[in-house]
Amino acid sequence: MSLTMSQASLLTFEITLNALSAVLDKAEAFATAKKVDPAVLLRTRLSPDMFDLTRQVQIATDQARRGAARLAGVEAPSAPDTETTIAQLKERIGKTVAFVKGLDHKAIDASAEREITFPLGAEKKGHMKGDDYLNHFVLPNFYFHCTTAYDILRHCGVEIGKQDFIGQIPLRLT
Amino acid sequence: MSLTMSQASLLTFEITLNALSAVLDKAEAFATAKKVDPAVLLRTRLSPDMFDLTRQVQIATDQARRGAARLAGVEAPSAPDTETTIAQLKERIGKTVAFVKGLDHKAIDASAEREITFPLGAEKKGHMKGDDYLNHFVLPNFYFHCTTAYDILRHCGVEIGKQDFIGQIPLRLT
Repeated sequence: MSLTMSQASLLTFEITLNALSAVLDKAEAFATAKKVDPAVLLRTRLSPDMFDLTRQVQIATDQARRGAARLAGVEAPSAPDTETTIAQLKERIGKTVAFVKGLDHKAIDASAEREITFPLGAEKKGHMKGDDYLNHFVLPNFYFHCTTAYDILRHCGVEIGKQDFIGQIPLRLT
Repeated sequence: MSLTMSQASLLTFEITLNALSAVLDKAEAFATAKKVDPAVLLRTRLSPDMFDLTRQVQIATDQARRGAARLAGVEAPSAPDTETTIAQLKERIGKTVAFVKGLDHKAIDASAEREITFPLGAEKKGHMKGDDYLNHFVLPNFYFHCTTAYDILRHCGVEIGKQDFIGQIPLRLT
């Protein structure tokens, strides 16, 4: 009857990353229609000292991949930040979704009380209980970067709505 | 040992809304320093057909208040969208935090399998299991509007960093 750690993490990552991938499809179509280089979108920032779209997408996948791996107690595969095209970012998202879907749900479900240790910056380490780590570190960071990626494209004029951000959720309409 | 619905919702709303309130303080200080009317910030949008900062904050609090109330099985207090100042928006946030903190944790914890019914647009209704409603509707919507409020202020030049968005979380540093 209670919520599980795996449910609150893995399906969230899958739904929201698949939505982000579909948003990038709309960005690609927008660039084609407007005859602009898609790389212009990928390098757009909301402020000169914020990360550009490429980096927002990379970090969103990092949060999902590393966060889920730490909860499962396994090593996350590395993902070098080398993407320069929308297709490559979509491939990174696809690999992330495949990775989180393949994780051991039971190991993640057992992680709520376990201390998670993770690097913060170059020298420090953060320590949080598994449930706190998911609720108050991984999820807000993950959503922050997914939303900012969306906001950058919206600011560029790409025709997307919040439904594109939310994605395919288990919802029954009447 | 398992995650609870109340833990994944109430403390999340409290931490992230308190962080948003502190971000609004920095917006107020920025407006004073730059000698601009704070109302200019409140009316800023990232795109002409997106909601302005005021509305982003209002909706973020709506998601927390209504989402938590539905999970607890109680009526959410109404919150007319009448705010025109940063102080009023901070008051709305404060009332929202006080409301969610006062909800019955046990009622929310028992809501994972219960069907939640909620209005979608003017005529339709959405139906979701309580855990799905929290994970895939309330939290993504809540974080979407909190992040977009932050992104608007960042775009305006307010000096805030991601730590301001994340807020005071149960983290031990070494």
